[in-house]
Amino acid sequence: NIYFDTSPQAVRLYLLYNHWVLKVLLYFFILVDLSLALFEEPAVVPLPSWVTMLVELLCLLVFTLRLIHYAKVIPRDKFWKDPKNICIILTLVDMIIYGALKAANCYGVRWSRVLRPLLLVNVTEGRQLRRAFRSIRNALPQIFYVFLLFMFSVLMFSLMALKLLGKRGLTTIEGAPYFTSYLEIVFDLYVLVTTANSPDVMMPAYNASFVFAIFFILYILINTYIFMSVFLAVVYNNYKKYLKEEVRQLVRAKRHKMVRAFAVLQEQKEEGGEPVVSQASWNQVVHLVQPDISNAHRELLWSVCDDKNQGAIGKVAFVQLADLLNIEVITIKSRPHPLNSLCPAFYQSAPSRLLCRMVQHRAFVIVYDLIILVNAVFIGLDEENPMIANSEWVFLALYMLEILLKLYVFEPRAFFSRHSFWNWFDTIIVVSALVATIVNSAMKSSGGYTSRQILDIVFILRVLRLIRVVDSIKRFRTIINTLIRIGPAILTFGQLIIVVYYIFAMVGMELFKNKVKFYEDTSDPAKAYCGNPLLKGTAFAQLNYCKNNFNNVVSSFILLVELTVVNQCSGFATVTHMSARIFFVIFHIMVVIVIINIFVAFVLEAFFVEYSVDKSDLQTSLEKKIEELELAVAQYVTVTTRGKNTFDPPKKL
Amino acid sequence: NIYFDTSPQAVRLYLLYNHWVLKVLLYFFILVDLSLALFEEPAVVPLPSWVTMLVELLCLLVFTLRLIHYAKVIPRDKFWKDPKNICIILTLVDMIIYGALKAANCYGVRWSRVLRPLLLVNVTEGRQLRRAFRSIRNALPQIFYVFLLFMFSVLMFSLMALKLLGKRGLTTIEGAPYFTSYLEIVFDLYVLVTTANSPDVMMPAYNASFVFAIFFILYILINTYIFMSVFLAVVYNNYKKYLKEEVRQLVRAKRHKMVRAFAVLQEQKEEGGEPVVSQASWNQVVHLVQPDISNAHRELLWSVCDDKNQGAIGKVAFVQLADLLNIEVITIKSRPHPLNSLCPAFYQSAPSRLLCRMVQHRAFVIVYDLIILVNAVFIGLDEENPMIANSEWVFLALYMLEILLKLYVFEPRAFFSRHSFWNWFDTIIVVSALVATIVNSAMKSSGGYTSRQILDIVFILRVLRLIRVVDSIKRFRTIINTLIRIGPAILTFGQLIIVVYYIFAMVGMELFKNKVKFYEDTSDPAKAYCGNPLLKGTAFAQLNYCKNNFNNVVSSFILLVELTVVNQCSGFATVTHMSARIFFVIFHIMVVIVIINIFVAFVLEAFFVEYSVDKSDLQTSLEKKIEELELAVAQYVTVTTRGKNTFDPPKKL
Repeated sequence: NIYFDTSPQAVRLYLLYNHWVLKVLLYFFILVDLSLALFEEPAVVPLPSWVTMLVELLCLLVFTLRLIHYAKVIPRDKFWKDPKNICIILTLVDMIIYGALKAANCYGVRWSRVLRPLLLVNVTEGRQLRRAFRSIRNALPQIFYVFLLFMFSVLMFSLMALKLLGKRGLTTIEGAPYFTSYLEIVFDLYVLVTTANSPDVMMPAYNASFVFAIFFILYILINTYIFMSVFLAVVYNNYKKYLKEEVRQLVRAKRHKMVRAFAVLQEQKEEGGEPVVSQASWNQVVHLVQPDISNAHRELLWSVCDDKNQGAIGKVAFVQLADLLNIEVITIKSRPHPLNSLCPAFYQSAPSRLLCRMVQHRAFVIVYDLIILVNAVFIGLDEENPMIANSEWVFLALYMLEILLKLYVFEPRAFFSRHSFWNWFDTIIVVSALVATIVNSAMKSSGGYTSRQILDIVFILRVLRLIRVVDSIKRFRTIINTLIRIGPAILTFGQLIIVVYYIFAMVGMELFKNKVKFYEDTSDPAKAYCGNPLLKGTAFAQLNYCKNNFNNVVSSFILLVELTVVNQCSGFATVTHMSARIFFVIFHIMVVIVIINIFVAFVLEAFFVEYSVDKSDLQTSLEKKIEELELAVAQYVTVTTRGKNTFDPPKKL
Repeated sequence: NIYFDTSPQAVRLYLLYNHWVLKVLLYFFILVDLSLALFEEPAVVPLPSWVTMLVELLCLLVFTLRLIHYAKVIPRDKFWKDPKNICIILTLVDMIIYGALKAANCYGVRWSRVLRPLLLVNVTEGRQLRRAFRSIRNALPQIFYVFLLFMFSVLMFSLMALKLLGKRGLTTIEGAPYFTSYLEIVFDLYVLVTTANSPDVMMPAYNASFVFAIFFILYILINTYIFMSVFLAVVYNNYKKYLKEEVRQLVRAKRHKMVRAFAVLQEQKEEGGEPVVSQASWNQVVHLVQPDISNAHRELLWSVCDDKNQGAIGKVAFVQLADLLNIEVITIKSRPHPLNSLCPAFYQSAPSRLLCRMVQHRAFVIVYDLIILVNAVFIGLDEENPMIANSEWVFLALYMLEILLKLYVFEPRAFFSRHSFWNWFDTIIVVSALVATIVNSAMKSSGGYTSRQILDIVFILRVLRLIRVVDSIKRFRTIINTLIRIGPAILTFGQLIIVVYYIFAMVGMELFKNKVKFYEDTSDPAKAYCGNPLLKGTAFAQLNYCKNNFNNVVSSFILLVELTVVNQCSGFATVTHMSARIFFVIFHIMVVIVIINIFVAFVLEAFFVEYSVDKSDLQTSLEKKIEELELAVAQYVTVTTRGKNTFDPPKKL
């Protein structure tokens, strides 16, 4: 969907630009660039700064080359507006400054590290991520107004709290004065919205009189329940609106391009009627765009377009092509079983057919569900007991038997088709469990030594096997299927959140690195206060939160996840300065109020669509066509349609 | 909407049954019955049990009388299906048993107290509450399936945690073995879903290796974020669906009744055409149903029904009557100002008109917004300073001046019309602040004694005054208006939640009363462990949560609110038994997963409707008619329509 010149040379370059090797290479270098954070100060694995800087230079070189390639493809004037250029130039400037400071033995901050994840957003391939970011940006003004009102409410309540509670001489459990500083109150009440300090902040007032509890209950009702719901409503509404608008624009652009393509191909005009495209050139186009499409599939699509069998299609039908290609058609050829071809006499014999009927019977599923339940109980029991340990072999054998039986009955290629999620899941889990268990017992019997890692893997695989039971209950299957369907979208959210986390991790590491230390050695007296005397006696040290720190990029990410769940940051304000809280408030606003709400909105939308099954007109017409075709022509081709999983909620536009 | 006999006597009884005095009396006795919990053991104000039982008997008598009255109105067979009867009989049985046990000096439990709030649900007047409950009941099966899947996921993760972490010999901060008992793990992980024990439960594992953090992050992603969103989606979807269905049934029933009414009234048949109802009998019906409707309003409604001016209306137009009466029509007669009538020479003089123009100017609003902001700063400053204390008088005078000026310019009845929320708000706040400040300074100057209560009221009123600033920003006004509009619905939720809280409070009081004690006296050594040696050294006692107990109904309610926000219940499991946790888990499922989600769904729905302003057809046609009428007939009657605020989300059916 980028603007590119239409000269033959530019088209060739464009095809090369989109070649998968180059794309994989680009993603690899982005990954390398992002993972540099592991090796730079504060590092998980420290490397000298010249090594990391060299690697970063290499990455930048690759990005620049990619950019130059891109510049050749698109018109010059579009090129300079691209934010990627700015990122690369800023990174270079920062590296030079940092190098110079380092050479002069001064303290330098690699501030351009914050820009790295933006590269991930800005590469042409990160389209869905960029779309998500644009939706957020567009939703921001509306969110901002609600946020202002929300902050106004927090400020009002804080003022009231100051006036009501400030002069009563109450103290917190630590003996500090309670609710005497306005800014402290604002912060405490803000944290109360996240429910992190829920009963604690109210206890001193509640102990003084139960009337004050009413104040806090009102506060929680208005700010935690009502305002947070309003945020969800606003985010949901705006995000949906803008996403719809974006998708609509995309559809319009696509249609425009298809019309232009039609204008190019329409030379084969017929007598005096409307311009049309012949089947031959249509086939050529489809073959060019999707070379891996099967002939049967192409013919099916053609028969949908040319539903009057004229051998040529008009403009309207041609424009639909892009949508048609987007609809995934699963072609399951109900081939005979390979054993049936190899020795039909055996496969068609009475015992073999009885076996097939047994395996396909509902009782077979129920028996295996019971086996799984028994297995669950056995897993729960102590595995030190030799009887229990040996039962594992029985269960593994039973599961292997199940897979083999199913393979005997069903055609293997159908069994392992792309959409049989549970078959894949089952086979992978059982086979890996078998391998891991064999390796484990081999190690045990040879040297009496058991690897903890392999045991862990065995345990995880054993438990994962139990999940299969969900698939045999129909009600659960629909829920699970919806969840699996939103999987790709969750991955986009994963990228989104990694971008935001990365930026906050970089800033957090600069601000808080080595302020809180974790000691592996339990005898060290500094362990009791996380190596920072300022933390002596604080709840942070008492609860042993020392490992929640910004000392390297892995801890930072884990800490940021914790902060997403519960905004517990008092420790960091203690070791630095009260203003450090601003960092955590901004994080809360960005991640919890905006991104998590978008995530919730997305899940909601997916389930609403699931409940109100409505399909686009085109898809229904295709389905009807397929039904007709099924009846009329092919006896052995079963075709099912399914909407392709894109990030866009599959809503009717 | 109840079934009643149509005999004249039954109708007379029905009208008496619906008389407001009887209704108020009923509500009063329900309130008395519910507030008995304040005086029964464990009591806030202990009364001998024979007093409370006598009062309860009186309440039951009133309810029974009301029921008998009701039985006279409705057909006999409908009566015996009513759950109210069962509640009353069960309560009587319980009281007899309890009285007998008490007389024999045995220990008795007043278990029927749990039934009391059900009376509130079941009185015919609690219609919206009952509708909400029915919607919840209907949504339960769907919620239940998701809940099963959710619990399956929690159980799987717990099993994995047991296998991965149980054998590593890790300990919690208290030194207890970490993740060794399956049931403990299930509970801990369930609480993790509520984010109550968020980093704590993971810290021992995380301290051992950061790899285990991945386990917890996955758990939080799947169970806290995805499953909780799925719950919201399911609750939202089902609640909306059933509410819609209920409303549709109501509309159908209403239409059916209107058709029957039409059949009664249609005697005045015309020549040979269709049966009609004449204007005279229509007027009579309207007058009977809503005696307080004005003539102008009735004529307006008639002209809407009889839009061809035939002097009579058909069936279709007649059936619409009920909907028409539901549409609230605000009649604002733009009367001349009373001062204008009293001394027009003065009111019409040049300085007076300049003043009017000034007050109506935008700058007037801005000046007062600035005054409010300056006032906010002054409130924030220390009120011990005499300058600041005296400035309060200046601000009060300014606010009074504003109200007087507005009353001078605008017609007082228009200024205090029912829908001018902010004018009412302003006047009440400023006048009460004035009264409280005068009382306060009178007390201070007379005896030098300042009442803390009055000072508190003064402070609250001062801060509340500042809220007014929100109204002058348009963006905020729409949000606030939506929030005010859902006010009545929030009240229904309030009732709903009080019913649920009441039941849990009664059960909780039986289970946990006096297990945890709060000591006002700080010198008592028992204070450190809340009067229960079992709590020695626990986090519950250390955090000074002693006042979070079930020792009386007020504490119970406050504790239940806290549990709604964060499910912190470890203390109660310590003082009784591990199985006490079941109580808290059930509470969490009922309140957080079901009711809070319905609340969130409701706020979402209200905002979605606000954003996509669509009105019902009838209302639009009425509005069009009104526009026509406005142009044609009345010059001095401005009519505005507004949808009546009912609990039903104002969605197009």
